[in-house]
Amino acid sequence: MVVELRHIKDIGHVASYIPELRNVDPKKFGIHLTTIDNQNYSLGDSNDKFSIQSISKVLTLALAFELEDEFLWERVGVEPSGTPFNSLVQLEYEKGIPRNPFINAGALVLCDILVSRLQHPKQEFIEFTRKVSGNPTIDYCPRVAESEKLTGYTNAALINLMKAFGNIHNDIETVLDLYFHICSIEMTCKELAQGFLFLAANGVHPLTHERVVNVSKSKRINAIMQLCGFYDEAGEFSFKVGLPGKSGVGGGIIAIYPGHYSIAVWSPKLNSKGNSYKGMKILEFLTTRTKLSIF
Amino acid sequence: MVVELRHIKDIGHVASYIPELRNVDPKKFGIHLTTIDNQNYSLGDSNDKFSIQSISKVLTLALAFELEDEFLWERVGVEPSGTPFNSLVQLEYEKGIPRNPFINAGALVLCDILVSRLQHPKQEFIEFTRKVSGNPTIDYCPRVAESEKLTGYTNAALINLMKAFGNIHNDIETVLDLYFHICSIEMTCKELAQGFLFLAANGVHPLTHERVVNVSKSKRINAIMQLCGFYDEAGEFSFKVGLPGKSGVGGGIIAIYPGHYSIAVWSPKLNSKGNSYKGMKILEFLTTRTKLSIF
Amino acid sequence: MVVELRHIKDIGHVASYIPELRNVDPKKFGIHLTTIDNQNYSLGDSNDKFSIQSISKVLTLALAFELEDEFLWERVGVEPSGTPFNSLVQLEYEKGIPRNPFINAGALVLCDILVSRLQHPKQEFIEFTRKVSGNPTIDYCPRVAESEKLTGYTNAALINLMKAFGNIHNDIETVLDLYFHICSIEMTCKELAQGFLFLAANGVHPLTHERVVNVSKSKRINAIMQLCGFYDEAGEFSFKVGLPGKSGVGGGIIAIYPGHYSIAVWSPKLNSKGNSYKGMKILEFLTTRTKLSIF
Amino acid sequence: MVVELRHIKDIGHVASYIPELRNVDPKKFGIHLTTIDNQNYSLGDSNDKFSIQSISKVLTLALAFELEDEFLWERVGVEPSGTPFNSLVQLEYEKGIPRNPFINAGALVLCDILVSRLQHPKQEFIEFTRKVSGNPTIDYCPRVAESEKLTGYTNAALINLMKAFGNIHNDIETVLDLYFHICSIEMTCKELAQGFLFLAANGVHPLTHERVVNVSKSKRINAIMQLCGFYDEAGEFSFKVGLPGKSGVGGGIIAIYPGHYSIAVWSPKLNSKGNSYKGMKILEFLTTRTKLSIF
Repeated sequence: MVVELRHIKDIGHVASYIPELRNVDPKKFGIHLTTIDNQNYSLGDSNDKFSIQSISKVLTLALAFELEDEFLWERVGVEPSGTPFNSLVQLEYEKGIPRNPFINAGALVLCDILVSRLQHPKQEFIEFTRKVSGNPTIDYCPRVAESEKLTGYTNAALINLMKAFGNIHNDIETVLDLYFHICSIEMTCKELAQGFLFLAANGVHPLTHERVVNVSKSKRINAIMQLCGFYDEAGEFSFKVGLPGKSGVGGGIIAIYPGHYSIAVWSPKLNSKGNSYKGMKILEFLTTRTKLSIF
Repeated sequence: MVVELRHIKDIGHVASYIPELRNVDPKKFGIHLTTIDNQNYSLGDSNDKFSIQSISKVLTLALAFELEDEFLWERVGVEPSGTPFNSLVQLEYEKGIPRNPFINAGALVLCDILVSRLQHPKQEFIEFTRKVSGNPTIDYCPRVAESEKLTGYTNAALINLMKAFGNIHNDIETVLDLYFHICSIEMTCKELAQGFLFLAANGVHPLTHERVVNVSKSKRINAIMQLCGFYDEAGEFSFKVGLPGKSGVGGGIIAIYPGHYSIAVWSPKLNSKGNSYKGMKILEFLTTRTKLSIF
Repeated sequence: MVVELRHIKDIGHVASYIPELRNVDPKKFGIHLTTIDNQNYSLGDSNDKFSIQSISKVLTLALAFELEDEFLWERVGVEPSGTPFNSLVQLEYEKGIPRNPFINAGALVLCDILVSRLQHPKQEFIEFTRKVSGNPTIDYCPRVAESEKLTGYTNAALINLMKAFGNIHNDIETVLDLYFHICSIEMTCKELAQGFLFLAANGVHPLTHERVVNVSKSKRINAIMQLCGFYDEAGEFSFKVGLPGKSGVGGGIIAIYPGHYSIAVWSPKLNSKGNSYKGMKILEFLTTRTKLSIF
Repeated sequence: MVVELRHIKDIGHVASYIPELRNVDPKKFGIHLTTIDNQNYSLGDSNDKFSIQSISKVLTLALAFELEDEFLWERVGVEPSGTPFNSLVQLEYEKGIPRNPFINAGALVLCDILVSRLQHPKQEFIEFTRKVSGNPTIDYCPRVAESEKLTGYTNAALINLMKAFGNIHNDIETVLDLYFHICSIEMTCKELAQGFLFLAANGVHPLTHERVVNVSKSKRINAIMQLCGFYDEAGEFSFKVGLPGKSGVGGGIIAIYPGHYSIAVWSPKLNSKGNSYKGMKILEFLTTRTKLSIF
């Protein structure tokens, strides 16, 4: 099977809007799978750090959901967006309430909540990330955060529009700074798979035995990943792979098989929807071959 | 638990666009759950026939997918719609390709395929329905079909628009006639639960042992239900219930717990999104209480 | 100046959706200008009949406005559409009220009014056209009307959508039949210029001295032409030409200089917005050269 | 006639998004009409200063058009918007090119051009305003400019979106600062009527004999006012009044009768579209009564 995986063809283009993503070796390719009883399988560059980008929105959601409970859903929806991840159209049409926590607008609202709730948002967020992944070395990449900020006019447009609708409570610069830092986090496939394993185990990290979120929240985060994890390709991923997951423009994808395992793949070239071309293919291949899917 | 179920409050309005739906007793309420090893649990008016309406689109998909295989996806997408079920906007924007098989436009394309592929589409479709549910008495309600046709201007708008884009191959009247008949099928909660049980059992009906669709297709139909089964409330249902399902404006809902059971609920009053108010609440209550969800 | 006019380059494509338009000689080119004191200037194929198509919508408006007075504006707006002439999006968004009388949806509502108000709509409409143009030979082209009907799925979509919203009161087939006939009228440049001269003369035809509409209605029809006469190129025409006017996909354009003259041009090749490429250029050249514009 | 004008009823609400507009006496009401041969008619509070707001966009256009000539139209369109004046939808759909110079996005692009072209944009713009109106006392209101900036999140969203599309070349803060200052200009009805008189006189100010723009540009600015001067009520104004004009949320309206006069009205209460309720009524009354309209 490994041979077959290596031969999945790879097309598309590496994200190019900031130098740090543009300069990644497009041939990089890693997989790491961790089961809830701590069996590990890996392949390729699974110990290389890469920019996890939007994958981090799942952790933002986990932390904001913990802090805000059901009140969270007064400020962000749980419906798939039906349009690209940075669209202002739907946001304007729906009066500043983002459709879900995984489009940029939604994640910006979550960051606004973290700024309201935490004393030292940047510091506390990275510590939360380290805790859930059981890895104290995980960190922001300040260079990536800075680059994102310099080109982040669309995000600035989104947050200003939401501020106009009253759905951003804090200073715009502060919220954007947290948002860009969270996007800049770097992890390996192994760290990702282990960091998200609590979502395969009803909210408790099976290695550290630490509860991250309660059972209900864990299920609900998975449900949101299932419906909204892949921009306007969520249906395609659900249809072909059948697992909740989340992608990032750095070429990473995390997927969860509840009750069984989490798997991270990384391949930097993106398809036209902004998801890792080869990553999508690999996960499709794996779940088709193993007949494992939640459906 | 039964007591609690009965006390879930019920609000909303019965569908009123045709007399046959308007005249249903709004207090009707039934549940039927069938496990793949043929245990059955029921409550209330579970043996009353009602108009299953859009729930039948799942069977239309199963049959059209069998007939057309992967070619089906050249004419209809698998993405959630992000807008109400009869919206022309997205259809026009996406050049006559409906977003998924469960919005009206998508189901009309499926009906067009059935008209192309079958000699006697109406007859063969109802026989397929009888076969999968193991019940030879299931039938169309000609009065409902006729009423739908008389008020079906939005569907006529949708099919004409798709014809303009080349995505309808047959005579418009013939396709609409099949579509309105399929919407008019009447079943009980018990018949529904048993009729959809093959989707909980990898495509084989566990009672008749007849294969309806192959494993992969069964999983994929479930995936589409998960993402697109509840109009623009799919995320809400997924978030709160965590099972693939499909609703109809007659007040029915079918939900599937793959590998375990199918469950049908019926309560005619609809919430503002066109889904059974009490039906949604009951399924939320059940899966929260039993902690059963695919996530 | 004539030499210069002949040398305006001509690009674009003849309308091709029905054979009758597709088979027109693309090199045809005519101009006719009539002043309110009956001076006439013409050039090229100004006595050839051609399909006036949407130009006829101005006459539909004149007649419906006469019959319905201000009540007309409860069923159709006077705002530019901002989107292509056959868009369903805006119509759906605005609950079945077309933005203006010159988009297809608006003209369909006007036809519905004519069907409600007239005993023999088709006969009475062509007689109205003959009267305002002082020419008893003007007629429908049944072959064009038939072709339009056979390919008119978008118009069928529009009228069904408006029927769903309650803004069409008569049988859909009857209204469409009238609409397609009105689109099929054939006139020469000379007949067009003379037929629309009443709009340059406050509503009275200066040759027949017959009042077609009152002063206020005449001004208002011109205002609507100014804002809505060229699909989503109305601003461009207003900006470059500065006269109220109306185009048709047959390649014709009528323009009005209130108080002075009417001018018809015909050149079948269309630009990407569906307006005569050379016709637009000629009118721009003429008004720039003569410094005549209402502004 | 004066008596009748005074009795036009007045409804609606004063603009309330900044204190400076909210605190205006809603009963204020002034008219000033200046003919090109310097006859003047006035009524009511015609010598009171008020915030001209978006009316100033016409002067921004005049100056930017002079500086940039036809190149201007590569960065902004001339089509009516079909949607509210601060909509992001159309801007996103059309890749950062605003539909016309009078929606906020379009005026922001004009301000970006002024920042590129002028050494001291704020100073030079107010001097241009003083020159065209022959009145050296006209000035910005710094308090209004500051208030606009503090609440201007929608404009910040628009400019960030255009920057993301590459249609803003300068620093966002600098462009916004110029924009908010231009919105804050205060003038009386008399100053407005005289300041815009050059547009009734082919681009030459008839009192100072100074040429502001050439004949062609003067006509084109009027054409844009005709089609785009009243947000999504441009058709209504054109239909009822029949003159090119421009309104502002301060309750002012300027209208031009080319070759004859300019007229300014002021009444702070706005209708639901953001235009002065009574101002619209007065201009409708005047042009209907005098039968003066460009059509």
